[in-house]
Amino acid sequence: MSDGELAFAGAAEIARRVASGEVRAREVTATFIARIADLDPSINSFITVLADQALEQADRLDAGRRGGAPAGPLAGVPIAVKDLVDVAGAPTTAGGHARFTRHPSEDARLVARIRSAGGIIVGKTNLHEFAYGVTNVNRHHGATRNPWALDRIPGGSSGGSAAAVAAGLCAVAVGTDTGGSVRIPAALCGVVGLKPTLGAVPLEGVFPLGWSLDHAGSIARSVEDAALLHRVMADPPQRRGRADAGGIRAATTDGALAGIRVGIPRPYFWEELDPEVRGPADRALEVLRSLGAAVHETEIRWAALTGAASAIILAVEAVSVHAQGLATHPEAFADEVRVRLDRGFFVPGAALLRAQRARELLTRTFEQAFESADVLIMPTTPAAAATIAAAEQAAAGNAPSLSQTYTRLTNPFNVTGQPAISVPCGLTPGGLPVGLQIVGRRGNEGGILRVAAAYERATEWHRLHPPLPSSAPASPVAGKTARE
Amino acid sequence: MSDGELAFAGAAEIARRVASGEVRAREVTATFIARIADLDPSINSFITVLADQALEQADRLDAGRRGGAPAGPLAGVPIAVKDLVDVAGAPTTAGGHARFTRHPSEDARLVARIRSAGGIIVGKTNLHEFAYGVTNVNRHHGATRNPWALDRIPGGSSGGSAAAVAAGLCAVAVGTDTGGSVRIPAALCGVVGLKPTLGAVPLEGVFPLGWSLDHAGSIARSVEDAALLHRVMADPPQRRGRADAGGIRAATTDGALAGIRVGIPRPYFWEELDPEVRGPADRALEVLRSLGAAVHETEIRWAALTGAASAIILAVEAVSVHAQGLATHPEAFADEVRVRLDRGFFVPGAALLRAQRARELLTRTFEQAFESADVLIMPTTPAAAATIAAAEQAAAGNAPSLSQTYTRLTNPFNVTGQPAISVPCGLTPGGLPVGLQIVGRRGNEGGILRVAAAYERATEWHRLHPPLPSSAPASPVAGKTARE
Repeated sequence: MSDGELAFAGAAEIARRVASGEVRAREVTATFIARIADLDPSINSFITVLADQALEQADRLDAGRRGGAPAGPLAGVPIAVKDLVDVAGAPTTAGGHARFTRHPSEDARLVARIRSAGGIIVGKTNLHEFAYGVTNVNRHHGATRNPWALDRIPGGSSGGSAAAVAAGLCAVAVGTDTGGSVRIPAALCGVVGLKPTLGAVPLEGVFPLGWSLDHAGSIARSVEDAALLHRVMADPPQRRGRADAGGIRAATTDGALAGIRVGIPRPYFWEELDPEVRGPADRALEVLRSLGAAVHETEIRWAALTGAASAIILAVEAVSVHAQGLATHPEAFADEVRVRLDRGFFVPGAALLRAQRARELLTRTFEQAFESADVLIMPTTPAAAATIAAAEQAAAGNAPSLSQTYTRLTNPFNVTGQPAISVPCGLTPGGLPVGLQIVGRRGNEGGILRVAAAYERATEWHRLHPPLPSSAPASPVAGKTARE
Repeated sequence: MSDGELAFAGAAEIARRVASGEVRAREVTATFIARIADLDPSINSFITVLADQALEQADRLDAGRRGGAPAGPLAGVPIAVKDLVDVAGAPTTAGGHARFTRHPSEDARLVARIRSAGGIIVGKTNLHEFAYGVTNVNRHHGATRNPWALDRIPGGSSGGSAAAVAAGLCAVAVGTDTGGSVRIPAALCGVVGLKPTLGAVPLEGVFPLGWSLDHAGSIARSVEDAALLHRVMADPPQRRGRADAGGIRAATTDGALAGIRVGIPRPYFWEELDPEVRGPADRALEVLRSLGAAVHETEIRWAALTGAASAIILAVEAVSVHAQGLATHPEAFADEVRVRLDRGFFVPGAALLRAQRARELLTRTFEQAFESADVLIMPTTPAAAATIAAAEQAAAGNAPSLSQTYTRLTNPFNVTGQPAISVPCGLTPGGLPVGLQIVGRRGNEGGILRVAAAYERATEWHRLHPPLPSSAPASPVAGKTARE
């Protein structure tokens, strides 16, 4: 297997080869570390590369394997972790000013689980400052660039994780998602992003953005890989059973979705879409119909209220995390982020309470939508990746914030806590990825993974790679459009 | 059985006699309706007496019994309901101005359960305006007077329910408790008050004071009766099993509490007590020791913080309920209550969030106290009943509010949601009742009822009746002090 093949082989495949002894974990790790050194200067997806730590971990794993130790499900898989999540021995910047950097001595619980499963942490990825934004234009650590178009944003706040996966700088990556921060960059970078059910993955050792809305999620180049990482990170009930990838691989393409009820919530979720996004999303529905799914239109009452509830709750939670920093070192925040944080101080308690109570009502209303549907489908974002220049204009206050646009279709499911996955579903005429979002009822990761996997098998979008500037393999199918 | 005997026979005994046919429900109901007409003009514990509705319900019950219908556990028991709780066909004033009175067509769920169990709703009881206060000095409906001393407050906000039970105007009564509103008036009126675990009794049809802190509870003249009413009102898991009164009656007095670990949280809960309260409470501990309980001193960390958390959360929740009324008809609120409500508008969202998060921490801390104790014991209130004149001075702003004093030892358990019961434990030298509070871990109503019942059997305090002004029987043991 050449270095290029290894880079895009995927986590499940790498783990199989390492477990079988076909390839050593050190070889895999060294390949990815070299790719990061080669390619990341133009992408800036990493804040910290943990070359030595990763190679040591790989050597221990190889030695263990030679000694007969059983290989875990992520054996030798190179994994990048958003720099909001503690990795022992590495700084956690949270994307902020150096004065706020922490030096944890313990792994976050989800990182410890990854290591126990044999995963190799290759580095900490760039993010929007304190995860409070969607562009990854970061004053302290530089803007992350979209591998598909280096003058464009990767989306955020887990933009570094998504860009690293898209560019083959790691096999899978950990992100966090408070209003869409896993799914938005996954969509904009043409990879898979899974935000699980609220509470499914533990957040000990993850720097908070909004306590009640935060989720840790998986970014990967295939549904199988996203499911694999999720199962390792999640608490026990999710680790086996319904979220099992076994069912995902077993199903065949023909009639794979027979009997599955797919709801299309046209009001709100299919409104105000960029035509470049609307087209691929409409064609995705055709694919689902061709797989036997029963596609029907539906409506979720008060869906538009989720944005208001999310904004109020997040504003108060975020400013509560940073109140001390804002008071003592306001200059250490980017203006854009400081203003966003300060808004939380303007929210009266009665408004927060009303938003919390609306959230309970909305959660029940959204769960009722699943009485007539197994999954709901809509685009992940209303638009493809904006330019970094446009994001900088918005950050300077000279254009409307991009947050409201990009989180519009994702933040409802942070409010309701329902699992949602973004899968690649096409390219704009300009060659930018478009994401399709699949949502299930709470706890039903298995259902959305099944639909996502069937869709993925029926299309070629996940096989596209961005045209990379250096030694990466040229995209084998870029420009080709599947099923068209 | 004479009218006087019937008035103080208790709910369980009345239900047994009605079920056996020894007495008719109509006879019981008519007796209590007559006592209300006779005695309540001097006490003012009722806002609405439902004489016709109650007699009709009693006749239906008697007819059913003649026809062989099984008698429920509250068969023919006259019950008063705080006028914050909907009773079909009767106005719900919530203790407020007439313009806010509602006319519900349905019973609150807990009232429907009482009726299904054969309970007879004899009337709606007086309360502090919108339940937001502890004195029951009510501008719209007049002050309720303490049957033990008519110039004194009965406590509140369920002051009418406690006064009616104490005066034998009903067998048991329903109250609500957001910061102590069942337990405080029970203590000040010398009766039993049970605030169950948060969520154990459904609140549909109960006008809210503070959504997240509200509980519906039972007021009775014996622990057995309080348990009986609680089991009828509670959701299924509480209706059988641990809260079963069977165990309460079966235990004998000698060694009744052998092996029971009683924690005495001296810091905070035994500080700043009026000596008139401290004395009876100390003697209650001796009684518990004599029953075989293992009494030990303990400490709950951050206990003092519960008051701050409670005040912030309740301020915001209460003002959210009344925001519209305050905006349109501020003159329809008593000044004292309007000022208390308006404070909620001053609370920033970040303060509410901090209080909510402190509440989660405090709940865990308080639950940990039960690793070394089966129950915790402290006085219910730091002082016995104040004069109505003093309460009016405080309401006029000429003296400190009495709320903080009277809720000091009760509101921690609204914050934590733990069950707590107040039982009579003595009289002050001036003849005012003192209450002892017994607290358990969440869901352990059975544990606190067992300790309360054992204490009750070992003492005579629950047998004392207030010296009533009219045809009520003279107190058989007033002045006598049990176990002294």
